[in-house]
Amino acid sequence: MKSIKSYQKTATTWFQSLQNTVCTHLEDLEKEFDSKNPAKMVKHNTSQSKGWYQEHRVIKGNVFEKGTVNYSRVTGKFNDLMRKQIPGADKDPSYWASGISVVLHMKNPKVPAMHFNTRFICTTKCWFGGGMDVTPCIQNDEQKDWYHTQLELMCNKHDEEYYSKFSEWCDEYFYLPHRKEPRGIGGLFFDYHFKDFKKDMAFVKDVGKTFVNIMSHIVFLNNRFKYTKEDKEVQLFKRGRYVEFNLMYDRGTKFGLQTGGNMDAILMSLPPEVKW
Amino acid sequence: MKSIKSYQKTATTWFQSLQNTVCTHLEDLEKEFDSKNPAKMVKHNTSQSKGWYQEHRVIKGNVFEKGTVNYSRVTGKFNDLMRKQIPGADKDPSYWASGISVVLHMKNPKVPAMHFNTRFICTTKCWFGGGMDVTPCIQNDEQKDWYHTQLELMCNKHDEEYYSKFSEWCDEYFYLPHRKEPRGIGGLFFDYHFKDFKKDMAFVKDVGKTFVNIMSHIVFLNNRFKYTKEDKEVQLFKRGRYVEFNLMYDRGTKFGLQTGGNMDAILMSLPPEVKW
Repeated sequence: MKSIKSYQKTATTWFQSLQNTVCTHLEDLEKEFDSKNPAKMVKHNTSQSKGWYQEHRVIKGNVFEKGTVNYSRVTGKFNDLMRKQIPGADKDPSYWASGISVVLHMKNPKVPAMHFNTRFICTTKCWFGGGMDVTPCIQNDEQKDWYHTQLELMCNKHDEEYYSKFSEWCDEYFYLPHRKEPRGIGGLFFDYHFKDFKKDMAFVKDVGKTFVNIMSHIVFLNNRFKYTKEDKEVQLFKRGRYVEFNLMYDRGTKFGLQTGGNMDAILMSLPPEVKW
Repeated sequence: MKSIKSYQKTATTWFQSLQNTVCTHLEDLEKEFDSKNPAKMVKHNTSQSKGWYQEHRVIKGNVFEKGTVNYSRVTGKFNDLMRKQIPGADKDPSYWASGISVVLHMKNPKVPAMHFNTRFICTTKCWFGGGMDVTPCIQNDEQKDWYHTQLELMCNKHDEEYYSKFSEWCDEYFYLPHRKEPRGIGGLFFDYHFKDFKKDMAFVKDVGKTFVNIMSHIVFLNNRFKYTKEDKEVQLFKRGRYVEFNLMYDRGTKFGLQTGGNMDAILMSLPPEVKW
């Protein structure tokens, strides 16, 4: 068995390379729809405090009203409350975590909001977590089927049990109990995932690549549609549910809060404009 | 000692009468600034479900971008988690609660957002809770002093210890630890307050009347000021903090969630438009 250090290095290298890939794709999509003056990613708040390293890149353009592509790495010790909840932290509270998180809020309400995240976390145990999900404010059943099929085909290359397990977990996770509403149309969600590093890393890489393909295709297809003022209103109200979910239930937000991350950075993924 | 039933009746009568008074004042202020076609309060979602009675009145006008004046009454039994946290519920989980809650989000960013709430809660014990606070997005120090002085003068009529105790509690309560920021400029906050029903009720009535006076004065004074597009932007971003507080920390929201209140109604106080 290789050392944990080498696992961490491999995961880190992948997350940072994927951050570059995603950013290139977002800029390409901006160019596709605005060849004269396309928006560019801007780096924000590269911060090194209390064990956190964060590199945030934000795009505000004609396609992506606000798109954030964040890489973060953090080390520290869990407090007593967290130790009881996190696998492997009961023996030793030290942790190491690294991950990439992408949140895309679109200008055009015919294009769904998209979220993707993968992370590698080590205490005395190591595991991967992550997933992706899609939140349309206007339904398109044909595309929904296509989206889930892409995820299923990708999962099946790794393990025939993954798709049903991780898509069900996604439906459970991205649910607003106080509204009795799902946040979006689902996708994949997995956590505490560790069987064999090489195989797991290959799966996590495939989740990332598949996200890039799905995202590019959905944006390319839908951003051409015209929309009305009423469509935009529907989107702004739907975004309220996104905010409610992230502030009330999201694991990433809670992890950031409890480990002293930069809140401007952690909440940077909130939608640019919202209505209730 | 009079029976709890008679306390409940007295409190209820006051809260409902205050709801009418507040609504009249909001409509008068709309008339003041738009004599031709002033906005009116609209009743929403009067619901009777799972022990809840709620009467929501909302105004969307030229002064109040969204103003909600809610009366609610609820009876039920606390679950095991709540029983441990709520005074007097360990012996018997039954509760009765009634209260009025006012949240005002202004069109003009020169006018601060305002919040007021008073409630009477009975388990095997009874107590009052409530308070008021003001959230400007643009500071005005002179008015801030006037506001706190009004509260201090009112408190001193009842007990010389109230103002310092309840204003400090307010500063502690309306604080966003993840941002290391106060939500607004403070005011009053009290909970589990019960010494003598007659005296306490007199204090709670005075808090309500003082809120009406302060609110009317502040709106009347500031709504005449012109504002820029940039001022409005500052307000929309400041409202994000309001949303973060309400979804992450607010007792009323948590109480509503845990007792099965109508979420559309409970979250009706969220700002109409927000930016992050």
